Amino acid sequence: MDVDAVKRFLTGLQEEIVARLAGIEGRAFGRDEWSRPEGGGGVTQVLEDGSVFERAGVNFSHVRGANLPPSASAGRPELAGRSFQAMGVSLVLHPRNPHVPTVHMNVRFFVAEAAATAAVWWFGGGMDLTPYYPFAEDARHFHRVCRDALAPHGADRYPRYKRWCDEYFYLKHRAEPRGIGGVFFDDLNQPDFAACFALTRGVASGFLPAYLPILERRRGLAYGERERAFQAYRRGRYVEFNLVYDRGTLFGLQSGGRTEAILMSLPPRVEWRYDWKPEPGSAEAKLYTEFLVPKDWAD
Amino acid sequence: MDVDAVKRFLTGLQEEIVARLAGIEGRAFGRDEWSRPEGGGGVTQVLEDGSVFERAGVNFSHVRGANLPPSASAGRPELAGRSFQAMGVSLVLHPRNPHVPTVHMNVRFFVAEAAATAAVWWFGGGMDLTPYYPFAEDARHFHRVCRDALAPHGADRYPRYKRWCDEYFYLKHRAEPRGIGGVFFDDLNQPDFAACFALTRGVASGFLPAYLPILERRRGLAYGERERAFQAYRRGRYVEFNLVYDRGTLFGLQSGGRTEAILMSLPPRVEWRYDWKPEPGSAEAKLYTEFLVPKDWAD
Repeated sequence: MDVDAVKRFLTGLQEEIVARLAGIEGRAFGRDEWSRPEGGGGVTQVLEDGSVFERAGVNFSHVRGANLPPSASAGRPELAGRSFQAMGVSLVLHPRNPHVPTVHMNVRFFVAEAAATAAVWWFGGGMDLTPYYPFAEDARHFHRVCRDALAPHGADRYPRYKRWCDEYFYLKHRAEPRGIGGVFFDDLNQPDFAACFALTRGVASGFLPAYLPILERRRGLAYGERERAFQAYRRGRYVEFNLVYDRGTLFGLQSGGRTEAILMSLPPRVEWRYDWKPEPGSAEAKLYTEFLVPKDWAD
Repeated sequence: MDVDAVKRFLTGLQEEIVARLAGIEGRAFGRDEWSRPEGGGGVTQVLEDGSVFERAGVNFSHVRGANLPPSASAGRPELAGRSFQAMGVSLVLHPRNPHVPTVHMNVRFFVAEAAATAAVWWFGGGMDLTPYYPFAEDARHFHRVCRDALAPHGADRYPRYKRWCDEYFYLKHRAEPRGIGGVFFDDLNQPDFAACFALTRGVASGFLPAYLPILERRRGLAYGERERAFQAYRRGRYVEFNLVYDRGTLFGLQSGGRTEAILMSLPPRVEWRYDWKPEPGSAEAKLYTEFLVPKDWAD
């Protein structure tokens, strides 16, 4: 296990992604370096009110703590309470144009330490797409890049991580998936460090090829008040998921992370309307009937 | 214990409050009666996009379930898993004018049943105020009505329930109270049913006298884009509290309540901005420095 190598990879990943997104927007991201008294810190890079990105946040953080919060060890209750370090890159892009989907990507590395026994480490990560006015071509492209990024690491990886993503990004109280999914993995520590690190790098380096072609294809499409209103309404679901269910958000808030950096994932402008339903047959209805349903997009 | 008497009181309370608010808006509330397969149902009354109320929701619900969810029995783990019934009136008013505070009121009655032992019942409730551009006169008025409503039920009630409210409506991740508080109580079953029911009625009947004078004083004040933007930003805190911490919201979502009725508490239009801080000395800064701090408003 090589903690420093993971850290170098993650900081490089953040810089590479921020540089590409800033180039597209034609404006630099703001950059905040922060540290916290309990140990660790991070670099928050954020761009708001752009013409392409209404809000784009790309975070790197490396935190240490005396007690691993329950949200981090849901699958391994025996590790709760150990001292730990956690590092990762997490990004959410909220584009202005409602034809461009919101996207989320995260890769993370945990080490749980204990005095008497060996440290336990694991990787986690993934990416997923949340469209408003969706295109089947975009959903297929996104999933195929995910599939191809995982192919060198075993033929079973994509189907397993695709299913895991569908299960994870699900709003039980709405009986609705957050979007059209992607891939999600956690607790990855087999067969060995080198293989797990390589898989994680593979997923991360799939992000720009998965998302940028969709952004480029859709960012120039015309839209009006109706499309903006639907986008604001659907962004409410994003808020509901992140605050009610998301383990990363809860881990951040529970571990005393930097609140403004964690909640950068929330959309900039959101609306809730009571019991609103799309006109049957409308473009808005299509999102529900054709996209927010289980589907094998990579086929 | 008289379940039917509580139900009659709660349905009457909903109708009385809705009638007053509809009169102020000059428009009727929408009314949805609903039931659910597991047992029980409710009446959701909602008004959106009014000139006074941007969103106003007044819910009555009476639900039954086979297993009391953990969120309902946080203070009494021994009751988790019992069959139960829960009824209550819950309201949140989001006025359009940023000089008028958002307000929340809730009264509820729980009965946890078990085959071998006697049923356990308790009341809970309270009300609290969340201003954007606050007035000390309004905070004092609201708290004094709360104090006076509780006075006949013991001199210690208001200070205890005021403190409980301050502790409950607190955003740990922001180190910030939700608003200027009010009163909150739960698990009330002493000394007997009649006394607890009378106290709960007292709090509920304090709601209109506590809030309407504030609404009347402030609804005509002029405001512009700046005030609306700050209101939208601060409403983000309301969303964060309700989705991350609020026991009532989590109970509703966990017990298979009607999602649209539960999430009617969320504001209609919300904005998040990264690391935003008010200008020192501004009207917006005054909210933080003079109102979102511990204070004995009733004195």
